[in-house]
Order: sequence, then C-alpha cells, then structure tokens
Amino acid sequence: MRARLLDATLELLVERGFAGTSTTLVSERAGVSRGAQLHHFPTKNALVVAAVEHLTERRGAELSAAFEELGAEPVATAADRRTRLRAVVEMLGDHFASPVFTAALELWVAARTDEALLAAVAPLEQRVGRETHRLTVAALGADESRPGVRELVQATLDLVRGLALASTITDDSARRRRILREWADVLDRELGKELTA
Amino acid sequence: MRARLLDATLELLVERGFAGTSTTLVSERAGVSRGAQLHHFPTKNALVVAAVEHLTERRGAELSAAFEELGAEPVATAADRRTRLRAVVEMLGDHFASPVFTAALELWVAARTDEALLAAVAPLEQRVGRETHRLTVAALGADESRPGVRELVQATLDLVRGLALASTITDDSARRRRILREWADVLDRELGKELTA
Repeated sequence: MRARLLDATLELLVERGFAGTSTTLVSERAGVSRGAQLHHFPTKNALVVAAVEHLTERRGAELSAAFEELGAEPVATAADRRTRLRAVVEMLGDHFASPVFTAALELWVAARTDEALLAAVAPLEQRVGRETHRLTVAALGADESRPGVRELVQATLDLVRGLALASTITDDSARRRRILREWADVLDRELGKELTA
Repeated sequence: MRARLLDATLELLVERGFAGTSTTLVSERAGVSRGAQLHHFPTKNALVVAAVEHLTERRGAELSAAFEELGAEPVATAADRRTRLRAVVEMLGDHFASPVFTAALELWVAARTDEALLAAVAPLEQRVGRETHRLTVAALGADESRPGVRELVQATLDLVRGLALASTITDDSARRRRILREWADVLDRELGKELTA
C-alpha cells in the first residue's frame, strides 16, 4: 500500500506538478482509502518527500548497477577508455533526464518558497548529491587527489542537471547526446592528461 | 505603470513562486488599481510571461554590454586569453545565478503542466537561448565551424544552467566559482587546441 501511494504521488507530480498534486488525488489514483493514506503520510509534504526519496534511491541503485556492469569490462586501450567514458556520461545524462528528475524538480522549486518542505528536501538533496558524486568518480575512474579533477566531476553532474532542466520543456535528446559525447571526449583528454602528467 | 506591474510580478515570483503569485497581490505590490492592471494584462499568464520577457531582455542587454567591455581589451598572450575566458565564464555563471533565472525557473516549471503557458514560454525560451548562445560564441571567440566547438559552447550554457538550478536551493557560490574556473581552463585548452590544430 505504501508503494502504491508513493508511485501515485510521483505520477501526479510529473503529470500535474506540485501545485496540482493533492492528497485526495493521490488516494484516488492509488486506490487507497483516505484514512489509510493519512495513517502512512499525515501531510502532503510527508507524502511528496517520501515519494521522491523512494524513487531517488531506487534510481540510484539502478545507476550503480549500470556502472558496475561497465566496470566489469577491462579498459586495456585508449579506444576502450574513450568508449567507456562515453557510456558513463551517456548513462548519467539518461539518469538525470528522467521522470524522477522532473518530480524532484517540482519538489525543489516548491521547497524554494516553503520553509517546512525545504527543511525536508535539503538533507535529501545533499545525501543524493554526495552519493551520485561518489558513484560518478568511481565509474569515471577519476583520481580526485589530482588538481581540478574534483571540479570536472562536479561540472559533469551540473552539466547533466542543466541538460535535464532543458529537457523538461523541450525534448531534444539528439542535442543532449551530441553535447554529452563531446563532453565525454573532453573528459577523456582531461583525465588522461592528469593520469600521464 | 507597465514597468511597475512587471517589477512587482518578478518580485512575487521570486518571493512566493508561481502558485503564490496572484494578480491581486501584483496590483497591491505595484500600487496599481485592478482595473488599470487588467487593462494592461488581462490574465495572470499574460502578466508573468511579459514580466519574465521584460527582465530577460534587460539582462541580455547587460550581459552583452559586459561582454563588449571585455572585447575592447587586446588578447595578446596565452595568459591574457586564459584571464579573458575565466572572466567570460564567470560572467555567464553570475548572469544565470540571478533572480531572473529564479523567476524564469518558476515559469518553466509551471509551463510544464500548463499548455497555454507553455505556448507562450517556449518561443521566448528559444529566442533567449539563441541570443545567449550567439553572445557567448562571440565573447569566447569560438569558431563554431570547427568540430566539437558548438557542442562545447552549448555545454557551457547547460553547465551554468545546472549550477543556477543548484544555487536556488543551496547558495554555494564558492563551489560555483571553483567549478567555473576549472571549466574556463578546460575551454582554454580545448579552444586553443582547435585554433592551433
């Protein structure tokens, strides 16, 4: 029942936005009685934060699994390395440009002008940010003790966030792919340079 | 009177978000009668789109002027060039991480689930995007006929958009500056490489 409520909440956040998502609509969509819903989640804020947290964790696990599969392959040559970096960056781009990002965006924007919501969203956002950073460093095989490498990893994550924001109003995935492929090749040169410096 | 209404609308979008901005609040804040307001802007959507358009154009002119000032200085040495690229990228970062971005973000997110609003916002967004791209190409001195250069300019704009989004909930301008400085140096190497290739 909890999972049904959370899934219904996310669907509604994506379809109707934060303002258009009410606890009444969620209980209807989930086929759960109002009483049962209030028992699990007493407020709209509790419901939306739990929903985004839930799906963010599931998606984080998916990203981690996808990266691990890549990790199993040997990276013997420069061409292997470039192919791998392109795959990692493309995976990140797909990970961000997803309905979870859209739901999270609705939550971030609502939290900006709602102190109670912000108090719940900010720690979640921090935790997710740290975890995504950690996974990305590992997947890129980046050595953050080298000057500038940490900033390039952060830039990569801010870039996919910016692309994801653009994709919520204009779905131009071909543009996204071209940009991310070029960026992967820049990272390849930059990280390679660091490694051989 | 029109300018007062538009300024009041932007203030309210930033302070209270799209959902919290009403035409009644705007006329109160602007000190304009409801009748006069309705004469200029018959609907909330007309008002918010005009407000964001107005300030976007003003800010675009500011960015253009700032870039032009940089352009007047000679870029004789590699060190000059790096200093200039850092300044251009920092300016872009500041330009995006501003209240105009916040107001536009409220509008984009509301437009995602409001067809009538989207119909007004999408062309504005496209025009602003093209104009910012054009200004950035000129300021970077980038030659887009070279392979990959166009994508790097686009990546730069998507990066500052992603950083601006992050800054709406966590104001970490020191982090932003570190990332943008590193990004500028990458651009310096990449664009320089293209120029001498």
